[in-house]
Parts: sequence; structure tokens; C-alpha cells
Amino acid sequence: MADIENCDLKSLSPLQLFEKVTEQGEKVRALKAGKAPKDEIDAAVRMLLSLKLSYKTATGQDYQAGLPPRDLASINNGTKEEDEDLVDPWTVQTSNAKGVDYDKLIVRFGSSKIDTDLINRIERATGQKPHRFLRRGIFFSHRDMDQVLHAYENKKSFYLYTGRGPSSQAMHVGHLIPFIFTKWLQEVFDVPLVIQLTDDEKYLWKDLTTEKAYEYAIENVKDIIACGFDINKTFIFSDLDYLGTSTGFYKNIVRVQKHVTFNQVKGIFGFTDSDCIGKIGFPAIQAAPSFSSSFPQIFNGKENIQCLIPCAIDQDPYFRMTRDVAPRIGLLKPALMHSVFFPALQGAQTKMSASDPNSSIFLTDSPKQIKTKINKHAFSGGRDTIEEHRKYGGNCDVDVSFMYLTFFLEDDDRLEQLKQAYTSGELLTGELKKVLIETLQPLVAAHQERRKQVTDEMVKQFMTPRKLAFEF
Amino acid sequence: MADIENCDLKSLSPLQLFEKVTEQGEKVRALKAGKAPKDEIDAAVRMLLSLKLSYKTATGQDYQAGLPPRDLASINNGTKEEDEDLVDPWTVQTSNAKGVDYDKLIVRFGSSKIDTDLINRIERATGQKPHRFLRRGIFFSHRDMDQVLHAYENKKSFYLYTGRGPSSQAMHVGHLIPFIFTKWLQEVFDVPLVIQLTDDEKYLWKDLTTEKAYEYAIENVKDIIACGFDINKTFIFSDLDYLGTSTGFYKNIVRVQKHVTFNQVKGIFGFTDSDCIGKIGFPAIQAAPSFSSSFPQIFNGKENIQCLIPCAIDQDPYFRMTRDVAPRIGLLKPALMHSVFFPALQGAQTKMSASDPNSSIFLTDSPKQIKTKINKHAFSGGRDTIEEHRKYGGNCDVDVSFMYLTFFLEDDDRLEQLKQAYTSGELLTGELKKVLIETLQPLVAAHQERRKQVTDEMVKQFMTPRKLAFEF
Repeated sequence: MADIENCDLKSLSPLQLFEKVTEQGEKVRALKAGKAPKDEIDAAVRMLLSLKLSYKTATGQDYQAGLPPRDLASINNGTKEEDEDLVDPWTVQTSNAKGVDYDKLIVRFGSSKIDTDLINRIERATGQKPHRFLRRGIFFSHRDMDQVLHAYENKKSFYLYTGRGPSSQAMHVGHLIPFIFTKWLQEVFDVPLVIQLTDDEKYLWKDLTTEKAYEYAIENVKDIIACGFDINKTFIFSDLDYLGTSTGFYKNIVRVQKHVTFNQVKGIFGFTDSDCIGKIGFPAIQAAPSFSSSFPQIFNGKENIQCLIPCAIDQDPYFRMTRDVAPRIGLLKPALMHSVFFPALQGAQTKMSASDPNSSIFLTDSPKQIKTKINKHAFSGGRDTIEEHRKYGGNCDVDVSFMYLTFFLEDDDRLEQLKQAYTSGELLTGELKKVLIETLQPLVAAHQERRKQVTDEMVKQFMTPRKLAFEF
Repeated sequence: MADIENCDLKSLSPLQLFEKVTEQGEKVRALKAGKAPKDEIDAAVRMLLSLKLSYKTATGQDYQAGLPPRDLASINNGTKEEDEDLVDPWTVQTSNAKGVDYDKLIVRFGSSKIDTDLINRIERATGQKPHRFLRRGIFFSHRDMDQVLHAYENKKSFYLYTGRGPSSQAMHVGHLIPFIFTKWLQEVFDVPLVIQLTDDEKYLWKDLTTEKAYEYAIENVKDIIACGFDINKTFIFSDLDYLGTSTGFYKNIVRVQKHVTFNQVKGIFGFTDSDCIGKIGFPAIQAAPSFSSSFPQIFNGKENIQCLIPCAIDQDPYFRMTRDVAPRIGLLKPALMHSVFFPALQGAQTKMSASDPNSSIFLTDSPKQIKTKINKHAFSGGRDTIEEHRKYGGNCDVDVSFMYLTFFLEDDDRLEQLKQAYTSGELLTGELKKVLIETLQPLVAAHQERRKQVTDEMVKQFMTPRKLAFEF
């Protein structure tokens, strides 16, 4: 019981208690399955009952597997905590100009922080300098990375899974974050990768035909290929297409769907009785690629290959659900690495929207458009007048140009210099924006150049279910 | 407006009113889509509003598309009508020893009776004597058969779709009813046929693995093939298998799933919040084979081929839902022919169960088992003593042996003679049972013989998605 200190239980939030009960329940199941000694099982069951009691005391409700206390809390209090950020796959809302409070999110979601120890361990395991997204806390949270690394250090590899919902042809630089990082992971760990385009999700949620959703998916695939993925180690698929061509995918979907109730998806995703049954079943479709048997062509039908999912933190609810189901269908839980949100040009209070052309820099923008958008729309942390700015300095915590540079400027020293100079007032807003413009213009131009070289033949090859250049 | 007599509205049940509103709504949509004259559209809209008002008056609730008033009725009255039969895909209950009241069911479900006119028209169209299931009211109800026949008479053909949920290896003679009739329809109309094995449904509803459910499906396929379907015109598929090999099936499933809400499946199938999301989404999987584009290999991607579904009446809720969705996704409504239930040996109050070996004659039963089961378990409409029987006669309406003979004895005259003799008391229960035994023994033996000749190669061929020997 070393991992649960009883004295601490009272200080835990309902969600933390919920996670503790869930964990302990799994532990009991594992002990029973492993035919552990009776006294050990009994002790674990007592602890489980005690945790359930604490949960009931804290929430006034019985613990229900898979139904986190989010809704209960708001029902019981009548109001939502004012300083609580709202984060789910469709909404990211915060009242703080610095953006979402990620430390709080780690506690609420029950994930773990990516700390210096973990980053150092990744560096040792791969022999590569950690990606700037790790150095700068852009990928800030994880689940089970210790296990993944432990296995990797013992020559047991894994595969990567990430995805995109193709809601339009237009992708912005923020959409690249998971792909840039995933490409790096693929390189330094030398592992295969599957990328899901959830065109079925977009069909279900938006006013689109299946044909249009698929068309968007293919356009997005070209931008994804342009990120430089290894064609021999990467499989990209559209749900509408792949579901009808894979003998393993649907079987895993229906297995997940058998083990998740409407109550659970209601609690996790906020679905209502008026939602269509397609939405209600969809979480299983995003869950299934977490299991290697969904890709029999790639993994030769092997079921026990560990999956690691790099994604933005708002996708975590899908994978909390997946991790809850996995042991019940005899499959491995996927590990995760979570990124922060990419802020809109107008400020960090909301996630960017692909439907507002001024909310970000798009991958199709010309150098001139990039310059105009940044100068006109990038929210500034500078002072109202040059005099005040020189005197008091700018605020990097809320300045969107500076935030964007933390994502895209590779040079750590240069970034630190800019921060110092901006904070001290030495560097003006216009000058900071100029640095961002000069960083993004060549980056976007290079992407456009690579995208031009993506042929239909390459798209077809990436999207063909096939054996990848890797042995497990 | 000739098809709706206003004066009649008050006499209609909530469900009939519901169907009227639905029909009229579709009519308005069709008129608008067909750019009909404004005054014609206006009149249709006025009628729609008036029907909605009648519906609201009768039920105290607003009309909601796709949500029939079943639940409203029971909520409003607080009690269920005592003499009302309960019929849905999982339960068939009646308190009447004669079985379900099918005339009432036609009214409640809003379908049409298969009357002499329709049977005569089928005879004229096919040039064949109507099947005994038609002559004896075993297929008793339909939807849109007039349209199917009208098109057929004008050289426009259709395809057949039926199915089975493979809940165990064992099939009983009652399971053959839809297949015997479908085989006849295939022959006399000379049309292609698709047969769905819903192994995914059985996995979701029962305590089975996907592998076991698939195994049952394959065993059932052998019994289905043994019914004598034309290998060149019949495609048999398991959902678990076909979903992952068809480019059209999943697209239609997700289209249906987008247009049906949880509220609707709750109303139609009685699902609750505790049901798994797999069950909630499943009705779309049974719906999708109603559309020819689910079988691109068979129909060359053609979307507008009419489907006719022969099935037991308990499956109608699936297809009411399908017919509601079809026009909204631009596809043709399937037509239907409904059969009565096959009674259990113990009596007509319940549907037979494959899990009770004594509830029916199984396709694997030996001649001796058939004899013993009928003699021991077949519910008799005879009198307690021979003397009473001779004096008052037996009751064919509740006698299971006689009911079974209506299903399986081809000779109409013989059946009528048996009825007369049994009713008059001339024929004793044991003698009637003997006729049934002598009818079923060779029938089951012949089935077993044909099943033995079903090879793995034939199973594979029937289950391979392919072009069938038919041009549309």
C-alpha cells in the first residue's frame, strides 16, 4: 500500500479520489488474476473499500466505474469553481490571459508531470538532445512514460499513434505541434507510427457529407506527409476508408463499445440524450488505434505491442476511457504525452479555430499575410506607449508573439535573450513581432515547398495498409 | 389529401397518428424537393400542422420525429393496457394462448395486412402458386409491397435482405421460417439476396467473445446454405468480418448513426443510460444492408436499388427506424414482409428460445428425439379424456402440433381435413402428433443431409463479396 498514504486522502479532490479508487480497483483485479496470496488480496480489497468510502464522503455519491465526478461536483455545488478551466475535446476555456493552468490540469486529470528526471531519461535512452517542446514544457504531462522507457531500455519497443480531425482543408501552424513532436519521437526512438484522420467524427459533428469529410482528410494527409514522416515506418488512414478495409479495427471498436456505457460517455464527454448515436459510439473509434491488433497488416496480428500517444491535453478524455477499458478486454493501456494548447493570435484564453482565418498563421499563408496577421492581430504583452514600455518592460507571459517563439524558435539562448530584453523594456513589441515574422516566414515557406512535392502516389503509399519496416 | 380523412383522426391511436404525421412530413419534404406548385405544398403543410395538433391533443406531447409515442402512453396512463402484447426484438409476450394478436399489431406498428388482393397480385406477377406461408397468413403484414410489385411489373427489380443473430450453434425449425420464405421469394422473383449474420450484436448482448460469436455465425451459415439458396445470387456475411472488408457498409452505418438520436433508440428499443454504447449504435448496423450501396461489389456502387426484407415482426422496429432515416440520407426505404412468431412446443404465449432444448425441434434432432419431444412437450388443444375429446372435440387455435403443421404441411386439403377431424373429436391428440412427427422427421433428416454436403469451400464462396449473377 506504499503508493497510497491514507492520511492524505482528505486533501484529495473528488477527481483524485476517483482516480485512486479506479487504480486500486485495477490493482485488486490484477492481484486476483495473478492468483496472489489471499492476505495480499484481502488487504487490497480493504484499501479499495476504504477509498470508496472516502470518495462517497467527499462527493455524497457512490463510486461508479468510468464515471468521473465532474458532473456530480457541479450539481452538488450548484456552481462551477470560477477559476476552473474547461477542457474537453470540443471546448477549451480559461479566464486567465496566460492560458490554461496546466499544473492544475495534471491534478484534475490524474496524469503525471513531465519533469527533468523524465526528460533526462529520454535523453539517455535515445542519445539525443531533448526536443525543444520537452525542454520548454510544451509537452508537459504524461501517463506511463516510465513504463515505456523501462521497456525500451530493455530492448522492448513500442509504436506511436496520433491523429487529426479533418474539419477543413486549412491547417494552421498550431496543428503541426503534435506532428512535429511525433516526427521527432519516431526519429529518436526509431519506431513505427499510425496517424488517424477522424473524417467520420467530422461528418458526425459538422454539416458535411462523408465525401467532403474524406476530401478534407486527404488534403490534411498531404500537410501531414510534408512534416517529413518516414514513408517506410508510417501508416496514415482515414476512418471512413480504413474501417472498411481492416479485419482488426472494427473488432477492437466493438470490444471497446461493449465495455463503455452511455452513462460513462455522458460523464466523460458531456453527451446528452439528443445526441446522435454516431457521436455516442465514436469514442471507441478514437480508442481502437491504441491497440496493435487494430493493424494486423503492420503488426502481424500481434496484440501486445505498447502504444504511445502524443496529443494535445484536450484529447485525454478519449484515452482515459481507453485506459479504463484496455485491461477489461485483455489489452495493454496506451501511454500518453500531452501538449499544452497552441494559443490564438488574439490571446491564450481560447484554443485556435481553423474557421477564423485571422486566429492563426495558416500553412497556406504567404510571407506578406504572415507579416500582416502578426503585426495586426498578435496580442501584445507590451506597454501602451514606448516610454512606458522602456520604463516598465513587456509581459512575456501574455504576449502571443513570445509564446509562438517558444514553439518555433529552436535556439534556447536567443529565446532567453529575447525574453530578458522584452521584459526589461529594451526590446519593443514591433521588434519582437519582427523576430517572429522572420522565424515563421521561412518555416511556412519550407512547409509549402515540401507539400508541393507530395505526390498522389506518395499519399496512396502512406495510406496503404502494409507491413512497415520494423520487427517487433 | 385523399389518403387522410380528417374525420377519422379522432379514432386513431397515438401510434397511428404518429405514423400519419411522419408520412405527411415526408410528403411535404418530397413536394418541396420536387419543386411542386406552391399551393400544393401549402396545403400539405397545413395538413401536417393539423395532424401534429391532433397528435398533441391525443398524447399531451409535441410530435418528435422518430420517437413513437409508446413510452408516452405508458407514462401518461401509469399502466400498460392489460391485453396489449409486448413485441420488440428481445421480448415477445402475450397472455393469450392463441399467441400474439397480429391484427392489433398491424394497427400498432402502422404496417399493412397482406390480404387476398396482394397475394393474388404476387401470383400474377410471378406466375407461381403463392407459398403456403402466404396462403395461411404466416407472412401476414407488409410495408410498401404494392410499390415493389408495381416496379417489378414494370421490369424494375429489387433485392432481398434477411438475417439472423447467431446466438448459438443450434438452430431450430422455427429459425428456418424466414429462410424458407426468402428462398421461395428468390426463386419466384429471380432476385439477388444478402443475408446478415449479426455476430457483433450477439457479442454485445451475450457473454461471448468475438471469436465465439463468429464461430456461431459460421455454423449458422451452414444451416442457412442447406436451405438451398442459389450460390450465384446469394451473399452471406458476418458483421465482424464484412464490416472490415467493405468500402460501402461502414459509410452507410455512420450515415444512419448521424440521423438517429439516443432519444429515438430509447423510444424504439427501450435502451437505457446503463446500456453499452455498442448496443446503442447497433440498430444502424442492422439498418445499413437495406441500402444497396452497402454492397458495392454486388451492385456496382448503385444506390437506388429497392430492398425487400422478409423477417419476423419483432424485427420491425429496426426497419421502422431505417425507413424513417432513409429519405433523410437520400436513400430508398426498404419494403418489408412480416411473419408471425413460431410458437414454442409448450405453447404460443412466448417466442421460442434456442437455449431451451425442449422448447422446439432442433435441426440436429434425431427422428427419435423429434418423436419424444413432440409426444412429451407439444402443448395439446385436446380434451382431458378420450370420452370428452370425442364428445367436444379439440381446439386447433391453441394446439401446438396443429400450429406446427400449418407451418410445415404443404397439402392444404390434408391440413383442412386434420382441422375438421380434430375439432370434431374424430382425431385424437396422439394421432395429430403422429402426423406432425411424420411430417417433421423427413424434413429435418433432409436438412441434415443437405447440411452434410455443405463444404468449407461453399461457405467461403457464399461469404465472398462478389458480383452476383444479376444485372440491374
